[in-house]
Amino acid sequence: MYKKKTPKSRNSYNDSVKIFPGGISHNIRFFRPYPFFVKKAKDKHLFDIDGNRYVDYWMGHWALILGHSPNVVVNKLDSQIRHGTLYGTVNDTSIKLGESIKKAIPTSELLRFCTTGSEATMYAIRIARAVTKKRIICKTIGGWHGFNTDLMQSVNYPFEVDEGVGMTGREGDFVESIPFNDLERSIKLLDSVKDDLACIILEPVLGGGGCIPADINYLKGLEEYCKRNNILFILDEIVTGFRLNFGSASSSYRLDPDLITLGKIVGGGLPIGVVCGKKEIMQVANPVENKYKERICYIGGGTFSSNPLTMTAGYATLDYIGKNRKTIYNKINKLGDMARNGLTRLFSDYGLRTQVTGIGSVFHTHFLSNGVNEIKSANDVALCDNQALTRYHFSLMAKYGIFFLPHKMGAISVVHSERDIRNLMNATETILESDILMEKKD
Amino acid sequence: MYKKKTPKSRNSYNDSVKIFPGGISHNIRFFRPYPFFVKKAKDKHLFDIDGNRYVDYWMGHWALILGHSPNVVVNKLDSQIRHGTLYGTVNDTSIKLGESIKKAIPTSELLRFCTTGSEATMYAIRIARAVTKKRIICKTIGGWHGFNTDLMQSVNYPFEVDEGVGMTGREGDFVESIPFNDLERSIKLLDSVKDDLACIILEPVLGGGGCIPADINYLKGLEEYCKRNNILFILDEIVTGFRLNFGSASSSYRLDPDLITLGKIVGGGLPIGVVCGKKEIMQVANPVENKYKERICYIGGGTFSSNPLTMTAGYATLDYIGKNRKTIYNKINKLGDMARNGLTRLFSDYGLRTQVTGIGSVFHTHFLSNGVNEIKSANDVALCDNQALTRYHFSLMAKYGIFFLPHKMGAISVVHSERDIRNLMNATETILESDILMEKKD
Repeated sequence: MYKKKTPKSRNSYNDSVKIFPGGISHNIRFFRPYPFFVKKAKDKHLFDIDGNRYVDYWMGHWALILGHSPNVVVNKLDSQIRHGTLYGTVNDTSIKLGESIKKAIPTSELLRFCTTGSEATMYAIRIARAVTKKRIICKTIGGWHGFNTDLMQSVNYPFEVDEGVGMTGREGDFVESIPFNDLERSIKLLDSVKDDLACIILEPVLGGGGCIPADINYLKGLEEYCKRNNILFILDEIVTGFRLNFGSASSSYRLDPDLITLGKIVGGGLPIGVVCGKKEIMQVANPVENKYKERICYIGGGTFSSNPLTMTAGYATLDYIGKNRKTIYNKINKLGDMARNGLTRLFSDYGLRTQVTGIGSVFHTHFLSNGVNEIKSANDVALCDNQALTRYHFSLMAKYGIFFLPHKMGAISVVHSERDIRNLMNATETILESDILMEKKD
Repeated sequence: MYKKKTPKSRNSYNDSVKIFPGGISHNIRFFRPYPFFVKKAKDKHLFDIDGNRYVDYWMGHWALILGHSPNVVVNKLDSQIRHGTLYGTVNDTSIKLGESIKKAIPTSELLRFCTTGSEATMYAIRIARAVTKKRIICKTIGGWHGFNTDLMQSVNYPFEVDEGVGMTGREGDFVESIPFNDLERSIKLLDSVKDDLACIILEPVLGGGGCIPADINYLKGLEEYCKRNNILFILDEIVTGFRLNFGSASSSYRLDPDLITLGKIVGGGLPIGVVCGKKEIMQVANPVENKYKERICYIGGGTFSSNPLTMTAGYATLDYIGKNRKTIYNKINKLGDMARNGLTRLFSDYGLRTQVTGIGSVFHTHFLSNGVNEIKSANDVALCDNQALTRYHFSLMAKYGIFFLPHKMGAISVVHSERDIRNLMNATETILESDILMEKKD
């Protein structure tokens, strides 16, 4: 059925493999038999080149909290594209976006813009090493902080195996991986390296690792450990920043991280990464005050950092969300609850052992198997029945025009409605009735 | 005079230091007493928030070969911003831009888009390590490949000192730095590590390091050395790609690199990085064919890779340049010659020992001193009279509205004219007559 509906995409994919290894520029964007090629996107919809329309829950890697090309952003970009896309110098729009972030996130006493999330996390740990004069980085197993060399450890299952070929094999010497949501075992591992431990970096909600919120006690325990031992506590909020509330997840959890990384939503649909943090820490990256190599932490670079298009889109987005924060977060968080509760009930009604994880407007379905009774870690996620998940996501897409990037969590945006969630439920129920999830072939 | 003309920029800078360490998001964008804040840019001009206009030779970190917001790009972005800025999935515009690059650059049998140049060089060396199964990376002293951790060695003077704080101190274990344009000494150093040498990466024209073209024999010598010893030869053409001709510098030099990195121009003024190379090499990054961690080289990631805005701007740019390549490169290369020859003569007439380096449409003035008689390396550049250069660039900006980012090379775009170059000459001559370059205070 998918193949029948997407002949042009098949042709495009055949062209694409002649240009890109595997036909893609981002590994997770491939799925079998071939991904559909998008022609345009607006609000909640993706339109492919064959004329099919999809209700999108992937939403630009979860970045598009206002949906695709929202008018509040388009109206501002409309002028900015005519007046420069890349000044290569300082500009007032950076100040406006910077101030918006500062106001919303207490940790953000000073910040720096870069162009991607991978850059932001790389710079954050560099700052941590610089101010603590220690070397080891701690991350969680299954934690995803982009493909920078420093953090390419314990990302994908099997977590103990090197993250692919092309590394020196020595990168892991300065990275300690701890089990997500297991404070006791984590502390034991931390104790073994704490004299040389520069920072702990983790996501408040494991994103790429399977949409698993961290236990508040886990976060608080790690934070306390950091404060006691001169270790920086870094929250990677590239996904959660402005996703769960107007600001950082750290605020709602009453955490006090030293550094926070942002991306996605704050770029308003354009490329961005942000490192923000306490003033005395961030100043190590100040090139005006630290003139000599012995003192400065070089972060930044980046032809495109603070470019006026991103700054404009990001500011338009935060400005709009800020003014409508109550309505927006009430709505999307409620839809998130509706999706999680509804799907959980539905799968249970049909006798399937699943767990729908998530928080606020992000959610993800796991088909429990291999002795996993509760999803607490990326390891649990890896042991689930991922073939069933593939069939589920694929059926939603191919038969019902509902798009989740296969195996990835979904994100609800302000353009989604209760009706969309009901449609998702109805489609899921029809799929459950057809028994397709239990088939053993794709 | 500058302060009188830029009171609003001074205020903005004062605001900016409360948000960003040093008031900036990219170290080189700061200059004393404070940088002017750009309000808009069009064609060859930057307009600051105080109403001053500058003829721009910085041109978005040399990315804007068609000038700021060229109509051919704006017209396409105008539609694209309404139809999605971030699909998060595959799209035909990526194919169009990919095909354009493939056609123009023989090395580019397969390619991958990422979002910044720093990412592109990081992925290129990861691929080199993956396919050679060797670990050491060779770069040139003063070579600038972005702020990724892997290549943060021997970038800034003094080159033997670590690139700032915040590294583990072990990154250099797998990086060998060779003297630019000195083949004999380079080969000796390479010989000492060749059994574990994965690649040599260098710029055909040292960009950030001072606008110094590599000798063709140097490039050919390194390439031959690589071919003989199972080492990948990587040209970082983030600056030179589509800058000197319609394609890569490697083609005009009749080089045959294994991998090339691109950025800047190919993004049409939006964020981009590209790794391209020989098919059998690039396939190591193919996630469809290499399913297991033991075989795949993970590159990519990147929420924003292949985003439709960048793809649209890049394709519009290459399409336009391709159709008008003869006119465009003839024009900008001729203006480059005019600038280099005119400035050289002028400084010589006034008895100043300078060298105006460059090639095609990029050029840079060096005030020779400290026994340096000819600019052959980044070390020579560092020993020049950089205070004189500061005064020269600052005077051009403050008095004549001609903008070079202080200490950085200039780039001519198709929107510049002979008259602009004559104006640059005239301004330079007036500055020379005023003796300001020889003053010992800023």
